[in-house]
Amino acid sequence: MKAGVLFSGGKDSSLAALMLSRDYEVELNTFVFNPARDLHGVANAANALGFPHRLHVFAPEILEKAVEAVIACGYPNDAINLVHRAAIGVLCREYGVVADGTRLDDRVPMLTRGEVQQLRDRCGCSYVRPLLGFGKPEITRLSDRLLKVRYGETGTLENGDYEAEIREAVEARGMNPSVFFPSHHTQSLVIGRA
Amino acid sequence: MKAGVLFSGGKDSSLAALMLSRDYEVELNTFVFNPARDLHGVANAANALGFPHRLHVFAPEILEKAVEAVIACGYPNDAINLVHRAAIGVLCREYGVVADGTRLDDRVPMLTRGEVQQLRDRCGCSYVRPLLGFGKPEITRLSDRLLKVRYGETGTLENGDYEAEIREAVEARGMNPSVFFPSHHTQSLVIGRA
Repeated sequence: MKAGVLFSGGKDSSLAALMLSRDYEVELNTFVFNPARDLHGVANAANALGFPHRLHVFAPEILEKAVEAVIACGYPNDAINLVHRAAIGVLCREYGVVADGTRLDDRVPMLTRGEVQQLRDRCGCSYVRPLLGFGKPEITRLSDRLLKVRYGETGTLENGDYEAEIREAVEARGMNPSVFFPSHHTQSLVIGRA
Repeated sequence: MKAGVLFSGGKDSSLAALMLSRDYEVELNTFVFNPARDLHGVANAANALGFPHRLHVFAPEILEKAVEAVIACGYPNDAINLVHRAAIGVLCREYGVVADGTRLDDRVPMLTRGEVQQLRDRCGCSYVRPLLGFGKPEITRLSDRLLKVRYGETGTLENGDYEAEIREAVEARGMNPSVFFPSHHTQSLVIGRA
């Protein structure tokens, strides 16, 4: 059975893809706002994992809605949930099984049990989260065991995280993104299998 | 890393054990109230999976508390949660990683995120649920792929489910267990690997 995994090139989505690949035929899917964005870090991560990798470009209104959500809320949580749901929505039209790297300790993005049920009922799609039952110490143990990972602040790694593009769009509106985004947010990029 | 898996011999705990065994050294753990209980079905399931299997006998007051919870609530949910937490509590003193077959769609037994965090903080124990991110259609797909399973109503299969013993204890108090327990509850017993 084919499974489309939402993939940023980071530790969590890579680990989810690897664990899922033991039972499913995994394809990695990365979403961007700007089709010209440099994604060689993500492509290298996909290559290191050894799974097919597809790029998707969001409809332009998604970025607008995300920026408005950041400004309206004063912090990025609603925007990240909105963008994540948009990506899941696209993948559910293309795959019978859609997955991501959501973990037990994540606050956002997080779908409720009702939303997962809706995807099943409306699209006939299974949305699965291989890491949902694992807390941070076990995620660390598993990623140390299976992956080689580089860490850095947002903007210093070429991963497929949405935050960098949303920050840029907030800045393009003449606002300072640091007001809305946490000042230290460590990102990860997979550079190989362990 | 060793992981103690709470094991009934049924489909979910067997699937959780198999999936976890790809990254951990799995030991199966079955809890009973009555040490004389016939558990050959559970032992056969453990044998079919190929993991070491340990039996534990609950302290007698756990059954008393469970029966009281069933009678107080009028249905078995609180009792099943109580017994499950007692078993997890024992295993957390013996293993650094404790797991079970809890799925996304389960109502009971279910620990909250706060309770999982408490186990981590108090005992230094990771409580993991390999199936938590999977809904029913995927659980069925995975168990069809990996396991041979027999199904039947509670009491017709020799698995390690707590319900049979709690029902007997309710009956021993002169009450009809059918008043408290749902009339049709399908159980499963693993009889081999697929």
